[in-house]
Amino acid sequence: MEVAIDKDSTLCISVAARPTNYGMRFHNYLYQKLDLNFVYKAFSSKSIEDVITGVRALNIRGCSVSMPFKERVIACVDELDESAQAIMSVNTVVNTNGYLKAYNTDYIAIVKLLEQYQVPNTMTFAVKGSGGMAKAVVYGLSKLGFTKGYIISRNQESGAALAESTGFTWKKEMAGIDAQLLINATPLGMQGGDTEGQLCFSEQDIQAASVMFDVVSKPLVTPAMAYATSLNKTVISGSEVFAIQAVEQFKLYTGVTISETLFNQARDYSRSIG
Amino acid sequence: MEVAIDKDSTLCISVAARPTNYGMRFHNYLYQKLDLNFVYKAFSSKSIEDVITGVRALNIRGCSVSMPFKERVIACVDELDESAQAIMSVNTVVNTNGYLKAYNTDYIAIVKLLEQYQVPNTMTFAVKGSGGMAKAVVYGLSKLGFTKGYIISRNQESGAALAESTGFTWKKEMAGIDAQLLINATPLGMQGGDTEGQLCFSEQDIQAASVMFDVVSKPLVTPAMAYATSLNKTVISGSEVFAIQAVEQFKLYTGVTISETLFNQARDYSRSIG
Repeated sequence: MEVAIDKDSTLCISVAARPTNYGMRFHNYLYQKLDLNFVYKAFSSKSIEDVITGVRALNIRGCSVSMPFKERVIACVDELDESAQAIMSVNTVVNTNGYLKAYNTDYIAIVKLLEQYQVPNTMTFAVKGSGGMAKAVVYGLSKLGFTKGYIISRNQESGAALAESTGFTWKKEMAGIDAQLLINATPLGMQGGDTEGQLCFSEQDIQAASVMFDVVSKPLVTPAMAYATSLNKTVISGSEVFAIQAVEQFKLYTGVTISETLFNQARDYSRSIG
Repeated sequence: MEVAIDKDSTLCISVAARPTNYGMRFHNYLYQKLDLNFVYKAFSSKSIEDVITGVRALNIRGCSVSMPFKERVIACVDELDESAQAIMSVNTVVNTNGYLKAYNTDYIAIVKLLEQYQVPNTMTFAVKGSGGMAKAVVYGLSKLGFTKGYIISRNQESGAALAESTGFTWKKEMAGIDAQLLINATPLGMQGGDTEGQLCFSEQDIQAASVMFDVVSKPLVTPAMAYATSLNKTVISGSEVFAIQAVEQFKLYTGVTISETLFNQARDYSRSIG
């Protein structure tokens, strides 16, 4: 896409092991629509510590943080927002004249979407994963008053720790669990990954559930979402998570709150190319 | 200006205490004309060391270095090109998969311009300054076979050191010097600086000389250049130095050699806005 740039343009960046164009398209679209002198660029990197040193040195205004850096970045910033502190996972770093404050806008997206789809907090949930995104999901569920749920993780250490800190139950496998709300917070089924094309939950688990929520945003429709849709289940997508957490970042970086209409336009534009 | 950008765009940057738009306009113009997926952005910074850490972490391809970092950057790179090693001043850092090699393309511009304007090496020169640019100028004069010249610098340490290492003479002031080739390699007369509007050499010195070469590129015509032009002297400008050193950087960053016509277009485009 085309963006306006000069020496005074404020740069915002994203860092991930496997960057996509979604964030660039979402943020740059809004900068242009609102005539803000900002530019957004996605990067891949191996060292989040050195990236943050660069963020300070070049006075980069915002740094969106994706896998696998959401926890390691914590040591690099000056302050954690309440949510980031509670979740101990960060996806947003805001640089105000060299002072770096970190946020978690993923959990805001989780909460907004579960409210929007009117998912009752009386449901039993099963969340797959125990990384940065899973922590944001479980924190969101907690905030919404869910009381019964399982954290499914092959990693005993992080899975059990997340269960213990939130009062839910850790299990290695789904066997024997009856959950109405299934949430995938792992890269299972992600395009370009080892598990591309795979279901993140089994057909039986999806059949038994009411809601299938997949945080994977690429492809836009994952195999689990497609299967749940075919069974007329409620389906919530990672691309919806992406757009909501992105607009929260946009607000933090620019100070500008946008209309619902403009949000929908930016979301649709960011999805229009892979 | 408008540039095309996506996650795969290669970023090149410049770092200076007081950045301008010239480099951005020069490089981005050529990227677009040649359909190269590159983007160039100017930054100001206080720490060249941290900038270079960021260059490595974000795999930024090229970093153009201006005042006051041309000497301090030397300690941050992996290898010095022959010219940078001789001059001990760097204006160009090229990052090839994490291996940083530094160059001095300023001196190339100095040599090309003195040749182009057919300035004979039998002239006595007086160079004002003893910083990174002055070192590049004196190295260029040496390469061209000039044998008689003065380094005029209020800083005795750097002035005398530069004179000693090149075999020329250090003087604190111009008094008593009869030079046909005057070169200003200081920020004297630079737009936005403390000395804006001032002559970098006295009227008497300019009257006595044949060539006035001012490396200050903003304004495009400095007071000394305007005065020398009014006396029908040969005048060489900093914006010419800028364009030639920039196209040498462009070649190093992209591997592409451009035509004279395209060079002239990029130079004129970069000058068309201040």
